[in-house]
Amino acid sequence: MKTRLLEIRQGVLSKNDRLAQSLRQQFHKAGTLVINLVSSPGTGKTAFLERTLTEMAPHYRVAALVGDLATENDAKRLSRSGAPVRQIVTDGMCHLEAEMVAAHLADWDLAELDFLFIENVGNLVCPSGYDLGEDLRAVLLSVTEGEDKPLKYPPMFNSADVALITKIDLAEVVEFDREAAYANLRAVRPNVTIFETSAKSGAGLDAWIDWLAAQRKMRTAS
Amino acid sequence: MKTRLLEIRQGVLSKNDRLAQSLRQQFHKAGTLVINLVSSPGTGKTAFLERTLTEMAPHYRVAALVGDLATENDAKRLSRSGAPVRQIVTDGMCHLEAEMVAAHLADWDLAELDFLFIENVGNLVCPSGYDLGEDLRAVLLSVTEGEDKPLKYPPMFNSADVALITKIDLAEVVEFDREAAYANLRAVRPNVTIFETSAKSGAGLDAWIDWLAAQRKMRTAS
Repeated sequence: MKTRLLEIRQGVLSKNDRLAQSLRQQFHKAGTLVINLVSSPGTGKTAFLERTLTEMAPHYRVAALVGDLATENDAKRLSRSGAPVRQIVTDGMCHLEAEMVAAHLADWDLAELDFLFIENVGNLVCPSGYDLGEDLRAVLLSVTEGEDKPLKYPPMFNSADVALITKIDLAEVVEFDREAAYANLRAVRPNVTIFETSAKSGAGLDAWIDWLAAQRKMRTAS
Repeated sequence: MKTRLLEIRQGVLSKNDRLAQSLRQQFHKAGTLVINLVSSPGTGKTAFLERTLTEMAPHYRVAALVGDLATENDAKRLSRSGAPVRQIVTDGMCHLEAEMVAAHLADWDLAELDFLFIENVGNLVCPSGYDLGEDLRAVLLSVTEGEDKPLKYPPMFNSADVALITKIDLAEVVEFDREAAYANLRAVRPNVTIFETSAKSGAGLDAWIDWLAAQRKMRTAS
């Protein structure tokens, strides 16, 4: 029984992988850098993305897709940035799949986008196995949720290209242990790029956006 | 393909349900009140449970099982309370199942336990469908993770008997909106019992423990 379930799951996954690969080719051809944001619920993904979109919008062509189990609240919040935003409601599924991304992109002209952000469903397990065709997977870790999360959820942290420590403005009041957080992130993903950020104060946002711009330059040049 | 996967999942679930039902009967017979703690990663489940065990241990016979994907850290932390604690490592699975609970209880004499706490894997989706034979399901919501979580993860909050708002000592600094949190909890689970707690300051712990004792009295009397 266990084997049979596993086989079917692999079938589902490889269909997703094929579609993700075709999305990735479209993104590259269009020159769009795509970032998949993953994290536990409550790390502040939406606040962080809203601030990122707001600061990038005057300088770059940015857009976002945002996944949630049941509500459209996040798309409404993100739309305040002025960037085009679409909600993907997963009806209870705990991750996005490449097919949902493809369906919600259908009438957007990728050639008119420099950056596309995909805010995944808040979950530290399910999204890790689903490639969405992104260039970069960014995992968010808030100072309030405990420095041990990378060790407890290795597949998610191991599959990330960049780690964004969020709510850094609260570091002191929650006695955030910076050294432990860095050590745990690097234990599961050596050499991972780390930014310390705050959507409230704006700390770290410039460095993050400059890094994204550099990543885009590198990818489109190659 | 989708239908086939669903059927197999239902098969797995009902096997779990049958085993959970048999566990529930054992717990009742022994007079053990069992509490399944569920939440997103980082709400402070382990800190809350450590404080609960420490305060209860002089007055009641308490024990805990704690589930995690990959580490035994939580069992080590909880053992400081002096209560018997066992770790269940799920090897990447995002929830506990009744079978794991049964296996890890095997040589404990339930008749010697007043309360058994089961700390589920930190995840707001996966654990909701898995009955562990518990009397009470307690969902934790920290003031730092956003008041909107009940609306975004309805199955988890809807299946809970009691909601524990954690890290209440941080309410002011994170501008926690108490009214919104209560309204959202009650939108998905009307009349849910709510406690505001802090594992750091100890706020709300007495009320929570008194409530548990009353629940146990009610169950064992019936």
